[in-house]
Amino acid sequence: MKFVSEIENTIKSLREEKNVSLRCRSDSLENVLYSLFPVLDHGFVRVIDYMGNDSAVVQAARVSYGKGTKHSRSDVGLIRYLMRHRHTTPFEMCEIKFHIKLPIFVARQWIRHRTASVNEYSARYSKLDNEFYIPQPENLVAQSTSNRQGGGVQLPECEKDNILNILNKGSEQAYEQYEEMLSEDEQNGLSRELARMNLPTSIYTQWYWKINLLNLLKFVSLRADSHAQWEIQEYAKQIAELIQLWVPITYQAFEDYWLDGASLSKQQLELIKAMNNGEKISFESSGLSRREWDEFCDILAISNR
Amino acid sequence: MKFVSEIENTIKSLREEKNVSLRCRSDSLENVLYSLFPVLDHGFVRVIDYMGNDSAVVQAARVSYGKGTKHSRSDVGLIRYLMRHRHTTPFEMCEIKFHIKLPIFVARQWIRHRTASVNEYSARYSKLDNEFYIPQPENLVAQSTSNRQGGGVQLPECEKDNILNILNKGSEQAYEQYEEMLSEDEQNGLSRELARMNLPTSIYTQWYWKINLLNLLKFVSLRADSHAQWEIQEYAKQIAELIQLWVPITYQAFEDYWLDGASLSKQQLELIKAMNNGEKISFESSGLSRREWDEFCDILAISNR
Amino acid sequence: MKFVSEIENTIKSLREEKNVSLRCRSDSLENVLYSLFPVLDHGFVRVIDYMGNDSAVVQAARVSYGKGTKHSRSDVGLIRYLMRHRHTTPFEMCEIKFHIKLPIFVARQWIRHRTASVNEYSARYSKLDNEFYIPQPENLVAQSTSNRQGGGVQLPECEKDNILNILNKGSEQAYEQYEEMLSEDEQNGLSRELARMNLPTSIYTQWYWKINLLNLLKFVSLRADSHAQWEIQEYAKQIAELIQLWVPITYQAFEDYWLDGASLSKQQLELIKAMNNGEKISFESSGLSRREWDEFCDILAISNR
Amino acid sequence: MKFVSEIENTIKSLREEKNVSLRCRSDSLENVLYSLFPVLDHGFVRVIDYMGNDSAVVQAARVSYGKGTKHSRSDVGLIRYLMRHRHTTPFEMCEIKFHIKLPIFVARQWIRHRTASVNEYSARYSKLDNEFYIPQPENLVAQSTSNRQGGGVQLPECEKDNILNILNKGSEQAYEQYEEMLSEDEQNGLSRELARMNLPTSIYTQWYWKINLLNLLKFVSLRADSHAQWEIQEYAKQIAELIQLWVPITYQAFEDYWLDGASLSKQQLELIKAMNNGEKISFESSGLSRREWDEFCDILAISNR
Repeated sequence: MKFVSEIENTIKSLREEKNVSLRCRSDSLENVLYSLFPVLDHGFVRVIDYMGNDSAVVQAARVSYGKGTKHSRSDVGLIRYLMRHRHTTPFEMCEIKFHIKLPIFVARQWIRHRTASVNEYSARYSKLDNEFYIPQPENLVAQSTSNRQGGGVQLPECEKDNILNILNKGSEQAYEQYEEMLSEDEQNGLSRELARMNLPTSIYTQWYWKINLLNLLKFVSLRADSHAQWEIQEYAKQIAELIQLWVPITYQAFEDYWLDGASLSKQQLELIKAMNNGEKISFESSGLSRREWDEFCDILAISNR
Repeated sequence: MKFVSEIENTIKSLREEKNVSLRCRSDSLENVLYSLFPVLDHGFVRVIDYMGNDSAVVQAARVSYGKGTKHSRSDVGLIRYLMRHRHTTPFEMCEIKFHIKLPIFVARQWIRHRTASVNEYSARYSKLDNEFYIPQPENLVAQSTSNRQGGGVQLPECEKDNILNILNKGSEQAYEQYEEMLSEDEQNGLSRELARMNLPTSIYTQWYWKINLLNLLKFVSLRADSHAQWEIQEYAKQIAELIQLWVPITYQAFEDYWLDGASLSKQQLELIKAMNNGEKISFESSGLSRREWDEFCDILAISNR
Repeated sequence: MKFVSEIENTIKSLREEKNVSLRCRSDSLENVLYSLFPVLDHGFVRVIDYMGNDSAVVQAARVSYGKGTKHSRSDVGLIRYLMRHRHTTPFEMCEIKFHIKLPIFVARQWIRHRTASVNEYSARYSKLDNEFYIPQPENLVAQSTSNRQGGGVQLPECEKDNILNILNKGSEQAYEQYEEMLSEDEQNGLSRELARMNLPTSIYTQWYWKINLLNLLKFVSLRADSHAQWEIQEYAKQIAELIQLWVPITYQAFEDYWLDGASLSKQQLELIKAMNNGEKISFESSGLSRREWDEFCDILAISNR
Repeated sequence: MKFVSEIENTIKSLREEKNVSLRCRSDSLENVLYSLFPVLDHGFVRVIDYMGNDSAVVQAARVSYGKGTKHSRSDVGLIRYLMRHRHTTPFEMCEIKFHIKLPIFVARQWIRHRTASVNEYSARYSKLDNEFYIPQPENLVAQSTSNRQGGGVQLPECEKDNILNILNKGSEQAYEQYEEMLSEDEQNGLSRELARMNLPTSIYTQWYWKINLLNLLKFVSLRADSHAQWEIQEYAKQIAELIQLWVPITYQAFEDYWLDGASLSKQQLELIKAMNNGEKISFESSGLSRREWDEFCDILAISNR
């Protein structure tokens, strides 16, 4: 990957400049600060700065003088209590800033998370690099016939070459046209702000993205979910790993209560109570829609017949 | 324009269904509710719903029982006072919802206004139409050599045909490739969510956009500004006309105090005081940067020599 | 109640001014628009304006031309689907504005819901009325010995008179002191902005509060909850009834999936699976904390032994 | 001041725990991290944590790899350019967290700044201390007869003693009643959540408050302004000094372009142009309201006759 060699030295020099600070820190996150974690074929995620750690969550919940107490059992208990009861404000007390490189079509989904700060590389002011996302063959999913999303079913092998060919050719052509419109010396040609509009949304952009821990957890819960497009899942999963380094206690509680938990409706709770009373339940008598019934069976690992 | 005939009947039938309501209304806005205002070659802006009017601003400022008082001189005075002193919260009490069709590269600038609600047409779930923004020849601006934006200078005539050719060909090719990847019946081909990534950002999308009056004024002040890209200016100007219909008193105050006013720095205020005292001012003695000096001369219509 | 007679006429005249509008409306909410719903001893909730209805949610989810379709079964299904999967953005497309009178200590909890617009009666500019919240005897709850909130246990009868005496005397004294500091003619006395700081937080204030439907549902889910202070619950419950009038389909889905549903953790889901497999579960072997175990048993109505 | 001795040791120990970190830092702010800056009679402001410095603003504006460049002249120029043109997003890239102790009536104004994270000491869960704000005699301003705010005119000396007497007596009585209602052992008495409602808004509360630099500058510009109540001005001014330590370049630009600058309306700009052309201007011919005219004369230091 081209970018690795390019910024390798910058990262190295940044990691050599050690400062003394009185601020609370996260040891595991310091170990990877500025480092580049590749995602997709040309993308990456880097943590550039952060504020707070698990103790900051505890401190805010306690609103007491001084620092949060040590990671004793009672801190763990408090964080788990907050997560369980969705007492969310203390999780806003941690903040993190990423440097991210991603295709524009992913960026368009990402930006819908509004409670964050963003500064994006501007294609009005600068020329975009010739880097496009081209999926790996195994990620070329076919349109589902049963629902409206990509279904996880791979394309037949015979189709894959054709698709990859089109994607490669399409982005190549578009970039040539882009350069031609800009003119050789990028002066006196068409303005950059207009020329870029001919480029496909598979081209890479990059941005700084700053967000608090609470909103970051919401991002992960929505975008690491299996209903999200595979490409943004890849970013969300990488970010989840970095959160785990940063605030391990919070992350564990998030996983247990939020990510791997489930919300059940009034009707579904009634079904469970019936089962506990030894009653037989069935789709027909459940009052649920087919879809809800299937989801319900899936959550509880029971047969959906 | 294709879309006009398509939705003409819908708009007509919507405009025939008159309801009685106790809510305050804006007569001039009711006259154009649901109607389509074309922007660029295939885009449009439509007002779909609204809440409040100039009286709602006054009412909130007065926080008194009952409705805001009639549009007497004192209401005008109060609204102008609020605008002048940036007492902004009463302007949040009005809300408006638009239906907008716009190219993706414009949508990407637009969405940076975070304090709004958006539902966009989804290219994961539905196929995009074959509609791309192709500028009029007179809007093909050249890259500026002095700054980094499109400079307002038109391309030489000889270049225009070439550029238009490229843009037309580029979008045509991209759409053909899109359709080929999707497969003829849109089933079993590449998933829509992947196929769309080959489409350029000049393709049109559409969304519902709901925002309060205060944030809408901020949007207009930034996007109707001459530093914004010409294409988004066109939308902002159309929206400004609709605001004027909706809340005429507020709009007039916005224009006088905000849009056509200027913020001057401490140093610039000192220069005006000096001028008023009969002193001679010059760039050299001003302490301003060249850029600030030019802006200053521009605002006060004085020669910048 | 004093305020009723005061604004009765205003409400009556507002309800007589019928306008024709092309906007979508909510019949049941129009029936009570501007009307006053008393809460606590001197407080109230009034709907002043609104935008959208259940159809607006559907329309946003469909992002199609024209109006949302009729309340067919499929609209109900779509809204329930959105609620179940927390596809929340379409619920932002409805907006409502309330006029609310409430004690300051309730207002302080209320204002923590940040995504809303507020204009409050200003005690810097105007004198506050002599109206304080004094609880009914049956609402004088004792401090819980087991947790840190008010526990729902009533004070012993012998204490109630004493408490009510103190509260009545305290607010009376404070208001007398307030008036004395302001001076008789409210001129040349202590400024209102300073004099008000001697008033207790049981005094009533009022404000206009505008919020979208999604954030309003979040408000209700947190503040109508049994862990919230009883006084704010009263407001949240009154507001819930008004939401039900406004958007009945959305409200029903909210109740089924959100309000009366429950979030279960990974560990709790495992316990249910074990039960379904005929295994015996117990607190000791559950791995849950005592508190989680009790909550779990409560949700599923099983004995917590 | 009682609290100083109480937390002196905590601060001392916090300031002894030096960590090594790779994050960018602000030397001057590190020097006062955790330290207590007194405001009013019992209040204070402390910086507990921060993220970013002037370089982070530059880095976001440049969206380039690696760290922001050194504080060269061009960095200063860039920050001033951003501030002048209200390119505000890069200023969101810095974040700061305060621990603040303040009277409730100040907290009620403060909390209106919505884009911030707050965790407040809870009077539902804990007993409030016996600390009330009592103004210094010189801050007892009289109600203005010409406008509706406190006018800056002091009360006549003969009134001051009486007022201070009332305030002291009022808070004393209220606190006695509070303790009586809570019962001696704080068990079985009235619940804390109800007992606190009898306490006046001059009582002190405390909170953690986290906010990004942009929103903090907005806070300072509104609350350090002479139209704000004197008490909150005191906090805003203390915070302004801390911003100056943290991001000195940004603060200087903020002062020059924002705090000490002025926004002039279209009409006011016309008047300046007329003056520059040697024309005589007057209130009568200006078209301004009396109030605008006075403000205009004030900004330009010209006689308002």
